[in-house]
Amino acid sequence: MLELESVRIDFPSDSNVIIGQTHFIKTAEDIYEAVVNTVAGAQFGVAFNEASGPCLTRVEGNNDDLRALAAKNAQAIGAGHVFVLIVRNAFPINLTNVIQNVPEVCTIFCATANPLEVIVAKSEQGRGIMGVIDGSSPKGIEKPEDAKTRHDFLRKIGYKR
Amino acid sequence: MLELESVRIDFPSDSNVIIGQTHFIKTAEDIYEAVVNTVAGAQFGVAFNEASGPCLTRVEGNNDDLRALAAKNAQAIGAGHVFVLIVRNAFPINLTNVIQNVPEVCTIFCATANPLEVIVAKSEQGRGIMGVIDGSSPKGIEKPEDAKTRHDFLRKIGYKR
Amino acid sequence: MLELESVRIDFPSDSNVIIGQTHFIKTAEDIYEAVVNTVAGAQFGVAFNEASGPCLTRVEGNNDDLRALAAKNAQAIGAGHVFVLIVRNAFPINLTNVIQNVPEVCTIFCATANPLEVIVAKSEQGRGIMGVIDGSSPKGIEKPEDAKTRHDFLRKIGYKR
Amino acid sequence: MLELESVRIDFPSDSNVIIGQTHFIKTAEDIYEAVVNTVAGAQFGVAFNEASGPCLTRVEGNNDDLRALAAKNAQAIGAGHVFVLIVRNAFPINLTNVIQNVPEVCTIFCATANPLEVIVAKSEQGRGIMGVIDGSSPKGIEKPEDAKTRHDFLRKIGYKR
Amino acid sequence: MLELESVRIDFPSDSNVIIGQTHFIKTAEDIYEAVVNTVAGAQFGVAFNEASGPCLTRVEGNNDDLRALAAKNAQAIGAGHVFVLIVRNAFPINLTNVIQNVPEVCTIFCATANPLEVIVAKSEQGRGIMGVIDGSSPKGIEKPEDAKTRHDFLRKIGYKR
Amino acid sequence: MLELESVRIDFPSDSNVIIGQTHFIKTAEDIYEAVVNTVAGAQFGVAFNEASGPCLTRVEGNNDDLRALAAKNAQAIGAGHVFVLIVRNAFPINLTNVIQNVPEVCTIFCATANPLEVIVAKSEQGRGIMGVIDGSSPKGIEKPEDAKTRHDFLRKIGYKR
Repeated sequence: MLELESVRIDFPSDSNVIIGQTHFIKTAEDIYEAVVNTVAGAQFGVAFNEASGPCLTRVEGNNDDLRALAAKNAQAIGAGHVFVLIVRNAFPINLTNVIQNVPEVCTIFCATANPLEVIVAKSEQGRGIMGVIDGSSPKGIEKPEDAKTRHDFLRKIGYKR
Repeated sequence: MLELESVRIDFPSDSNVIIGQTHFIKTAEDIYEAVVNTVAGAQFGVAFNEASGPCLTRVEGNNDDLRALAAKNAQAIGAGHVFVLIVRNAFPINLTNVIQNVPEVCTIFCATANPLEVIVAKSEQGRGIMGVIDGSSPKGIEKPEDAKTRHDFLRKIGYKR
Repeated sequence: MLELESVRIDFPSDSNVIIGQTHFIKTAEDIYEAVVNTVAGAQFGVAFNEASGPCLTRVEGNNDDLRALAAKNAQAIGAGHVFVLIVRNAFPINLTNVIQNVPEVCTIFCATANPLEVIVAKSEQGRGIMGVIDGSSPKGIEKPEDAKTRHDFLRKIGYKR
Repeated sequence: MLELESVRIDFPSDSNVIIGQTHFIKTAEDIYEAVVNTVAGAQFGVAFNEASGPCLTRVEGNNDDLRALAAKNAQAIGAGHVFVLIVRNAFPINLTNVIQNVPEVCTIFCATANPLEVIVAKSEQGRGIMGVIDGSSPKGIEKPEDAKTRHDFLRKIGYKR
Repeated sequence: MLELESVRIDFPSDSNVIIGQTHFIKTAEDIYEAVVNTVAGAQFGVAFNEASGPCLTRVEGNNDDLRALAAKNAQAIGAGHVFVLIVRNAFPINLTNVIQNVPEVCTIFCATANPLEVIVAKSEQGRGIMGVIDGSSPKGIEKPEDAKTRHDFLRKIGYKR
Repeated sequence: MLELESVRIDFPSDSNVIIGQTHFIKTAEDIYEAVVNTVAGAQFGVAFNEASGPCLTRVEGNNDDLRALAAKNAQAIGAGHVFVLIVRNAFPINLTNVIQNVPEVCTIFCATANPLEVIVAKSEQGRGIMGVIDGSSPKGIEKPEDAKTRHDFLRKIGYKR
């Protein structure tokens, strides 16, 4: 008996969330170190769902509120070997590659500041992430003037030359 | 209310399609540069579904038909923060690692020239990719003579020594 | 007509399984070489579902039982362009990054020694992996003494300093 | 006729310098983007010695003083296809991997805040970096109490758990 | 008794050369596969100096002239565990990252189409690369109009947006 | 006043040595973890020359003899920000990529089981590695029968298919 369920992720509007599939309790410390080594000044919490033995949600981070929130969301997802990272003062663009390189990480489902639903399958054994609904659907295709605005914006904020 | 829907991807038989989850409008330019820096002579279009604010499908590429087709498929999928890359004169084997290294990219769902269905979940908020059906199911397990043919083929085309 | 089905993966209790999405029959040889180049002494089998033409499950590895088991699970999943790697005397932590770097690999769904269900979508065209249920759901959030035990354990086994 | 020369690098005490071998004038923009994408708030200048045609030292960055200083050091080294990056409000630990991934980069000679000499070979054709003298030579081997201090320090600053 | 010597690399004007430090005879095949997997249509030769046992220069590639030339240059350098790759119809920008990821590769000294001197140290034991002189020394620092020309050029050839 | 000196590395015949340029005392722990996470059963010592402040050679590892030997060689080289890793029961092919990914690592000079000379430049400030002489110089170019032997050998030991 397989059912799908949508889990809405709860995180502050001034932060981003990164969710992925991994394995092994070392994930919590390794993602901690990956964030700290990459972005000085980032505030964050990361939670990992241990999927055997004690089956505890393991938590690291340098900010108590974000630690608690990461754990709450990991519990709500309830899927084994999943991590939830909530981070302030850093952007996913700074972090996705280093988190992908953490030796436990299998894949990253999403990295976003948008409203986020995680789609979970439930069986008798447990729960697993199937995918995410990340923000809103597109309303149209950009026109040349939209492309120009986008191009200019990335130069204005200094991300591109 | 959660529903699943299958979206058939429309792309030319002489091209490959790569679809992934990412974030941020810079994706379109960064995938553009990743392709151009890796494969000289590739023709391509890439589309990215912005998932907040104007929610436009952002488009880059060096071939108008493939740009339009990438945008059309991204619209049909309709999931936020998803990109669709359609490329001719290049193979996924040339591109998956460099696209994975683009700083916005979370994951790559598939890279294929096969008939492709993208399975999308729909909620009130929006849409998200759950997975793909890439080509046909296997019809059997290779026998020693099939393994030999495979082994020889890869040497004949020069991909392996 | 789209249906979901759960496929239970069958692998020995002293081994780990890594499942991912990839493309091209060269996957089988390339994952073979990635494992052998990374972990001396690993015993393994890897199977890849070719998704066009002959549509055969392609198999490599250095252990006949694990080769047969990888092929059996790949057949049971039945999704095109999917690989199943079953490995003994090596841990996923040794392998996920090198497998991610194999030029055919799109994503890794999971890496685990836990009971594992793979959730597959079925259409008229074929089958595709939507996600996995990897082990059990979390039973609670770790307390300070659990975090200490975890921290100490990783030092005791020498994985962290 | 081959001679060795030592070039002392001039950079502020509150900054770090990273020097490497690369190729192609796109290096300047690509390192610019790598830094900006990785560390929000970094101030920096990067200079690249074009080695054919106009043979100009190409300069990018978001801080005029550091741009001028990077160019001055690149000129002093005088070796073709070399870059000099001087960065404030970021640490090499945040940057070496992303700079290594810039598609033009061959190797990184050093990343340091120490007094730095770059050893240059001079021929009739031009100049080339042979290596660096980075800081001071070791004065002894750490004792158990030094190792403990080191271990504790890395935990105190939050870099390790 | 240590002496330095300059070895001029001989390669066609329509090709690029990449030279690096590696180990193990598998280098020759692995660089072969890295090139073929990355750039369809590249013509190349790669030579690797085995540094123990038979001490042979090992050669791979898909073009006889470039194979012979790679071997000739590797012999002229005469340093153990060094490889020389000469490639036509591909640019270093397409190749440096994939070659860096070849599991035998330690470092890449240079990637260039410029006149190239390799600086070699000679001892009684053997020879080793200290560094390279890659093209000409810079003649000045770019002015704003030079920066604009550079910026425009990279957009004109389509390498940057 | 600049002088070159050759330092012969002392390591057991059943082990390999990897030497590189890095920065920051965290190198010692990070290389420790990189080795342990990659190769179960490896015995090793790693030493890093701190180049400011206390200027101590920092040492980690899981084998006392190899720890002492790594420290001895790092002292003999005497160059700041250099590491020496000596490892048994693992091959460089298993390790070069993961060590390159350690966030402090700039470059790897060599990875070898051959007789090894490290060429060091000495100034008033300190010492720096210019390059290495790794094993013996090549004695000739392989003939077709040598290439066949090499090709067969790599298949016989299972490193290539």
